[in-house]
Amino acid sequence: MPGLSVDEVACRYGLSAADIAKLGSAENPYGPSSAAQAAVAEAISRVQLYPSWTAEPLRERLAETYGYEQRNYLCGAGETEIISVLIRAFAGQGDPILMPAPCFPMYHLFAEAEGRVADLCYEATDRPSMAVDVDAYVAAIRPEHKIVFITNPHSPSGTWTAESDLRRVIEAASHCLVVLDEAYVHYSGDPGGIGLVEEYPNLIVLRTFSKVYGLAGLRLGFGVAHSGVIDVLLAAKPTWNVGQLQIAGGVAALGDHDFVAKTVDTICDARSYVQDLFDAKLDRFRCVEGSRSNFFLIELLDHDLNSTGVWQSLLERGVITKDGAVSFRGLGQRFLRADVNFRQRMDQLVAALGDLP
Amino acid sequence: MPGLSVDEVACRYGLSAADIAKLGSAENPYGPSSAAQAAVAEAISRVQLYPSWTAEPLRERLAETYGYEQRNYLCGAGETEIISVLIRAFAGQGDPILMPAPCFPMYHLFAEAEGRVADLCYEATDRPSMAVDVDAYVAAIRPEHKIVFITNPHSPSGTWTAESDLRRVIEAASHCLVVLDEAYVHYSGDPGGIGLVEEYPNLIVLRTFSKVYGLAGLRLGFGVAHSGVIDVLLAAKPTWNVGQLQIAGGVAALGDHDFVAKTVDTICDARSYVQDLFDAKLDRFRCVEGSRSNFFLIELLDHDLNSTGVWQSLLERGVITKDGAVSFRGLGQRFLRADVNFRQRMDQLVAALGDLP
Repeated sequence: MPGLSVDEVACRYGLSAADIAKLGSAENPYGPSSAAQAAVAEAISRVQLYPSWTAEPLRERLAETYGYEQRNYLCGAGETEIISVLIRAFAGQGDPILMPAPCFPMYHLFAEAEGRVADLCYEATDRPSMAVDVDAYVAAIRPEHKIVFITNPHSPSGTWTAESDLRRVIEAASHCLVVLDEAYVHYSGDPGGIGLVEEYPNLIVLRTFSKVYGLAGLRLGFGVAHSGVIDVLLAAKPTWNVGQLQIAGGVAALGDHDFVAKTVDTICDARSYVQDLFDAKLDRFRCVEGSRSNFFLIELLDHDLNSTGVWQSLLERGVITKDGAVSFRGLGQRFLRADVNFRQRMDQLVAALGDLP
Repeated sequence: MPGLSVDEVACRYGLSAADIAKLGSAENPYGPSSAAQAAVAEAISRVQLYPSWTAEPLRERLAETYGYEQRNYLCGAGETEIISVLIRAFAGQGDPILMPAPCFPMYHLFAEAEGRVADLCYEATDRPSMAVDVDAYVAAIRPEHKIVFITNPHSPSGTWTAESDLRRVIEAASHCLVVLDEAYVHYSGDPGGIGLVEEYPNLIVLRTFSKVYGLAGLRLGFGVAHSGVIDVLLAAKPTWNVGQLQIAGGVAALGDHDFVAKTVDTICDARSYVQDLFDAKLDRFRCVEGSRSNFFLIELLDHDLNSTGVWQSLLERGVITKDGAVSFRGLGQRFLRADVNFRQRMDQLVAALGDLP
């Protein structure tokens, strides 16, 4: 389900837009990278020209930034487009694709839309931590799988999987493509898994410009892998899938270190802050431990509550979250996902939860 | 093949960028719609937000502009993305898809990339007009076809197919989807076939913002069809396939009537002008008659010449065109495609052709 917009909620419940806490889409509370904004504005006047088929200036900048060569990078209109392309390119009709459940729903939505089989490895939802159970996940990998997804930090829990555990997954799935989705890696304090690509020809690491760079509405992401993997994806993607403004914005954002640092500092501070707030102020709700992302799971400890009801009550109080029952297959009725955002918005979330009947 | 950029050609042949005639990609010589530029600039500051899954503000504006309802419109990152999606959604692995040859190469490139079969209906290339032979095309339609493409004005010839002939194609292919690609329709002087959608549930009409609106680098196009067709495509497309800047630019461009009129006037004037120039100045080259688009075919009348050699010689003289032998399957070695552009660029093209050894 898409996150609701501020205007929709303000209109529906007669609230002021400024008073809405938008905590359902993990967007950047600071807005877009200012360097990216300037670069996009500069590029508008030449937007009559077709872009490079491969977003070449951005691939060049990615190679300078993260190592490897241009031929190791694929750019897409968001990670979501790359996920859609790799599902088609690496799995045939009817082939199974392994993913944890709950997970980013695009994995199974795209798999099913393309006639592939989403094989969900269901996780227990009655644990103190909602981290991926790597032992169970490795045990679920079968020779029939054509793609194995893993997300780090994981969504919706925000939890971290150690490199040694990632290696176990990649090695257990050496017969197929492993997709390591690092959309939220900047918030983890870890440099992430791009360095593993050198060792594993069956690995592709995905990153997005939607989160820490504040460019969700621009639609831009990339993948990094051995060139054999990238060549297959280049042949399957729509030709001019990334436009001039995306290229210009992405190149500039990669150099906007101050903006990234400011965003990460704010989110990490607010993540500790909201954990403490939950502990101090709420009895019926738990902030599930261990998030290293810009969102976290709220568990409903009161069994008279269900996630859809709480989600709706929060909405009426001007707080937009994600209802776990609707947004994440396998998560059940006891969880919401909420963004980490400015301290003031965390206060607002906790106050609204405390105010529920 | 992608059109070469001005900078690449200037650098390779030691020319000044201002002296290059870029006539290979059918872009707008005036640049982007100024209304679209302003709207994109205004939208940049909110690009941290995810866009609507369906580009809703643009669908709303399309319905106001062309009739029907929002549910009759699909927006994509260029017509090319929509073509890629509809090939997957309406044809299965191994299914045949009919298209004229020569045609817009994305039809067969995407079909083959997705494991569908491109069934090319080859046209004779030794005719005075290179218009689509509708009798032959209708005769080529078989019950096995899942999709039938038709382009109006056609590419690469620029020729027009009358509505009565379009109806013959749509009716002969009533068992499958007919894709009427109207990327260049603004240059035809005809309102085009959107009105036919009401009558034919098997028809989708495609339009682009890349041509008359000067937004090729923004990546935006749309399709209009019965809602049953649109629903299938919505389920198959990547989720947030059109971003905030594309939505803002598209909405503004649709209202930029002065820009459209100026562009169309200039192109139509220059199209007559270049036809006369060819007649008056060139013996070894013919401007193939009947283009109602912003490009035309140049036929090599001198059998000692071939298209690749001429294309290369033009490049060395600062004139970028499309080599028919490389860009259009089935066109052979006797044709180039060149854009209609400012009169000065047409002079430059004709002078360069006259200068060939």
